[in-house]
Amino acid sequence: MIETPYLLFLGDAPDPLAAKVAQGIKDWRPENCVGQFRLEGCKADLKLPDMTLAEAKAAGAKTLVIGVANRGGVISKAWKKVLIEALEEGFDLASGLHNLLRDEEDLAAVARATGRTLHDVRIPEVQYPIANGEKRTGKRVLAVGTDCSVGKMYTALALDSALREAGKKSSFRATGQTGILITGDGVPLDAVIADFMAGSVEWLTPDNDPDHWDVIEGQGSLFHVSYSGVTMALVHGGQPDALILCHEPTRTHMRGLPGYQLPSLEAVRDVALELAKVANPDCKVVGISINTQHMGEDEAAAYCKEIEDRMGLPTVDPFRHGAARLAEALDGV
Amino acid sequence: MIETPYLLFLGDAPDPLAAKVAQGIKDWRPENCVGQFRLEGCKADLKLPDMTLAEAKAAGAKTLVIGVANRGGVISKAWKKVLIEALEEGFDLASGLHNLLRDEEDLAAVARATGRTLHDVRIPEVQYPIANGEKRTGKRVLAVGTDCSVGKMYTALALDSALREAGKKSSFRATGQTGILITGDGVPLDAVIADFMAGSVEWLTPDNDPDHWDVIEGQGSLFHVSYSGVTMALVHGGQPDALILCHEPTRTHMRGLPGYQLPSLEAVRDVALELAKVANPDCKVVGISINTQHMGEDEAAAYCKEIEDRMGLPTVDPFRHGAARLAEALDGV
Repeated sequence: MIETPYLLFLGDAPDPLAAKVAQGIKDWRPENCVGQFRLEGCKADLKLPDMTLAEAKAAGAKTLVIGVANRGGVISKAWKKVLIEALEEGFDLASGLHNLLRDEEDLAAVARATGRTLHDVRIPEVQYPIANGEKRTGKRVLAVGTDCSVGKMYTALALDSALREAGKKSSFRATGQTGILITGDGVPLDAVIADFMAGSVEWLTPDNDPDHWDVIEGQGSLFHVSYSGVTMALVHGGQPDALILCHEPTRTHMRGLPGYQLPSLEAVRDVALELAKVANPDCKVVGISINTQHMGEDEAAAYCKEIEDRMGLPTVDPFRHGAARLAEALDGV
Repeated sequence: MIETPYLLFLGDAPDPLAAKVAQGIKDWRPENCVGQFRLEGCKADLKLPDMTLAEAKAAGAKTLVIGVANRGGVISKAWKKVLIEALEEGFDLASGLHNLLRDEEDLAAVARATGRTLHDVRIPEVQYPIANGEKRTGKRVLAVGTDCSVGKMYTALALDSALREAGKKSSFRATGQTGILITGDGVPLDAVIADFMAGSVEWLTPDNDPDHWDVIEGQGSLFHVSYSGVTMALVHGGQPDALILCHEPTRTHMRGLPGYQLPSLEAVRDVALELAKVANPDCKVVGISINTQHMGEDEAAAYCKEIEDRMGLPTVDPFRHGAARLAEALDGV
């Protein structure tokens, strides 16, 4: 569990996209962000107050979060200076980078000396159990995709917000590094050892109030041969009551797999539902989320209507249309 | 890769069942076994020559394999003495125990000093790639089960033997610790990190001759909520041309999951085949393997016939009837 609120480190981001993790935190959990820290030449700007470490500390920040993808997989000297100062000022550090904070000897030494914590959110911090399949109280909804990177995290975050806005009890349950940094907690599922994958999802979504929704971030796709095992563990470990299908209509092949076509929404619906019913016989597919970022406004609306008519399920792009209709679709579950 | 041949260490096995790993090695790869090493009070006997370390060394043994499950998860003093002497005599050690050889300081120190290798086959020794889904040459058959522990490893080993007896090219591909100890090689799939599961199966079953069969050991079940992700990675990483369904008819619930019923063979056939076709559109279900160990001879024969008539696929218990009919079923693939 990462202590909040955060100071968001944007470093020397070469463009706004490089700071998309920080942008995600600011968009979805603005209450977790006291300010941003930028180095000279930084081309990203979250429109948060620029703060020194001392100013952020005075404003209550507990953790400096690296919200930027670095170049070349190396933590640069310019970054190091700030990170070490942050530890000395009493901040924990959190990062989703491939090159781990803990593997940097100077950072590890200063963290030990100052008693601060280095959170590498790609690495599990918990010894997860093997899944026991026991029925848990509370409700769960899982986003499943036709492919990787079709908007499952965005859909889950938007659905969580829509449920809260409608006065419902809801928790977004992160299963990837960006989601973990956004919420400060979660399971880095792709880094969990095979035998414990489903158990880690059970651990992430424990017993809860009968009217509480866990909105579980999806990973991979049952039809993506590289990562389908991870998706399978979510379907069984999450024992979802409801599934939301996620799709990006302009994809010409499965991400990273040029020889592989995307499955139809019908195929994903049928296979995911049959497998989900093993863990929860009452599971239903309740809605569809379309990522229309590569479409114009009219084209997007027409496409969603076409899918809604074809599949007989509420179909929206949560980014354009909000997720209120998906949240309403959970009412009947 | 573990060096063969082996001296099989049976320790102080309290009964024959405790030495079942050693029994499996002797049954399936007798050519890998020069003898057995037993401590006082050992209640198991593989009917191999009892040998001292020096005798086994003289007979060509390269590795002392711990073929017995120990009690209490601790490597006892009595075992330690033999294991250390074995390292000093020039043997490598191999083990599938939960308590790792490498975690025993004395064993690790002697192995370093003598230049010998400690093989803990529960732990991957390779940095596996992420699966790329590219079509590989050669043929592959995978055993998929209605449940865990229904005889998938036995089926695969028997099928591999039957193929060789019929003059075909075949390799058993181990995905669990017992299989790895039997063949000296393989992937401990349940210990692989999620993102690399399917890639490890691709790595295990590389390009081969067009008429060569990889007979892939199955793990878990698509319908077992604790381990289905591992099974999924086998179905996609293995890109099988053929599936064999495995079933144990007297099971009253899924192994370790009292609230879960077993799926029908039809359900396993349909879901496994649809998912397998993602990686290999030509995949076929070719036969059924029934574990009839809890049935009498007549009952077993009647049950296999009933399933064969119902499913329209060759159905045998490879332990009772041999696997020749399953091997023949691969001819058409």
